[in-house]
Amino acid sequence: MKNKLDQFIEKNTPRINDTLHTILMRKDIPESLQAAMLYSVHAGGKRIRPLLVLATLEDLGVHAEDALEVAAAIELIHTYSLIHDDLPSMDDDDLRRGKPTNHKVYGEALAILAGDALQTLAFETLASLPNTRPEKTIELIRLLAIASGANGMVAGQVLDLEGEKKSLSLQELELIHLNKTGALLTFCIVSGGILADIDVEKMKAIKAYAENIGLAFQIQDDILDVTSTTEELGKNAGSDESSEKTTYPIVLGLEGARKQLMHHHLLAKQSLAFLEKDDSLLALFADYIVERNF
Amino acid sequence: MKNKLDQFIEKNTPRINDTLHTILMRKDIPESLQAAMLYSVHAGGKRIRPLLVLATLEDLGVHAEDALEVAAAIELIHTYSLIHDDLPSMDDDDLRRGKPTNHKVYGEALAILAGDALQTLAFETLASLPNTRPEKTIELIRLLAIASGANGMVAGQVLDLEGEKKSLSLQELELIHLNKTGALLTFCIVSGGILADIDVEKMKAIKAYAENIGLAFQIQDDILDVTSTTEELGKNAGSDESSEKTTYPIVLGLEGARKQLMHHHLLAKQSLAFLEKDDSLLALFADYIVERNF
Repeated sequence: MKNKLDQFIEKNTPRINDTLHTILMRKDIPESLQAAMLYSVHAGGKRIRPLLVLATLEDLGVHAEDALEVAAAIELIHTYSLIHDDLPSMDDDDLRRGKPTNHKVYGEALAILAGDALQTLAFETLASLPNTRPEKTIELIRLLAIASGANGMVAGQVLDLEGEKKSLSLQELELIHLNKTGALLTFCIVSGGILADIDVEKMKAIKAYAENIGLAFQIQDDILDVTSTTEELGKNAGSDESSEKTTYPIVLGLEGARKQLMHHHLLAKQSLAFLEKDDSLLALFADYIVERNF
Repeated sequence: MKNKLDQFIEKNTPRINDTLHTILMRKDIPESLQAAMLYSVHAGGKRIRPLLVLATLEDLGVHAEDALEVAAAIELIHTYSLIHDDLPSMDDDDLRRGKPTNHKVYGEALAILAGDALQTLAFETLASLPNTRPEKTIELIRLLAIASGANGMVAGQVLDLEGEKKSLSLQELELIHLNKTGALLTFCIVSGGILADIDVEKMKAIKAYAENIGLAFQIQDDILDVTSTTEELGKNAGSDESSEKTTYPIVLGLEGARKQLMHHHLLAKQSLAFLEKDDSLLALFADYIVERNF
């Protein structure tokens, strides 16, 4: 079972990295800006979001010529959000994926601008898809904007910052994560569905899958922050506790959080029933998210 | 002559403001984020960019149903750039249009996020145009991204920051402004041309117009920074000198800068010959940019 996903990741990660690199190496970007953008894009992310786009298409049995570009656009948005989230006025993180954060290397001004430009580049990438029908391209742009803006990812970051040092309910905590990480993760799966032209029923099913793995991902993140070392995580372990953030282990206890994780894991896998195969890549991805220890 | 432009501005500014307000008042934006976004969007900008979109269409004699939405999208990009440019790590400005800057009111984190979300909202607005052909919509999105990203506006801001405390040549100074303010101003005119379906020759002419008023606008800005008071400008006068920025008056002297201003003013108006009328709105706009004292 595991082997199939490993092979898929091994095969596609370099393709995603190459696509990102090609997009970023276009001419006429000031050298320092390009360096700052490249630094964070190539800072060792696992490419979970782009891999989910490609996995969705593979599970649906559809080949879409622009899939890698769409996948890369999402990673550009994700990368911009990490750079801005790490800034001193936000989460104030010095370390990300085991490396100094963008502003630690390039300074705050360039880090902000690199994030800004990565966001723009994501939309430019989608608006330049060579093989996708215009109506579909516009739908991808519109949904990426909704997922990542004031109704989605940015909303989640605002709620997250405002929730610090407050005691949050499970519902409030879920609202933060559905926005902060869930909306973009859901768009990964939905964009695969759009490229594959699936019907409304199937779209509903993969959306449910996406929301559940999004929450599972966050719960596992919170659990790892309590149970891992900084070295294992590549970022500061225990940072949630020191920043007095409400986390799943705090609201539910460590055992309760693990139960909640299993609950979302199960719902995610049940949503994939329509694929009529047990070893779909998306099912294996759900396992991977739950079992990861980094 | 002047009256026609005044009437045009008086008629269209409220329509632009209403469109912006409608876009921003959609539900589900966290209250604080929405407040920060609204604050800068309604901070008393002159709406020069959206007015240029509408003026281009009016001069071309074309009605485009989505013109106000396109105009608003550009203003959202412009507003995001002002919020980020004013941040302590960038230009560190406390005052903008006579009011405290966004981060002074809402704090740095929310100011960064409000800027981020305004950028996203601009692309969402374009991807939601109800009456424009999909191919045209995509072209608008692609060109707005190019104008505002790592090859355009953000590049200009990077070059500007890097040029501080250095002595720049006229050519280097122009490169900064062609990117920092020129690219987005040019897109205003070009987007009007796209909505109006003009041919390549006319597009070339209005692009030349746009680049020249862009440079004229910046030269006048630099001149005003030397010759006006803080009260007249609504921002800190003399800030260029205190930040040791290279400006047109520094490179060319005050009289030389005025000559350069007139040079671009003339070129801009000559580019409008194809309109075959002396009192086009765009020609009046060129006069307005040169004669303004705020």
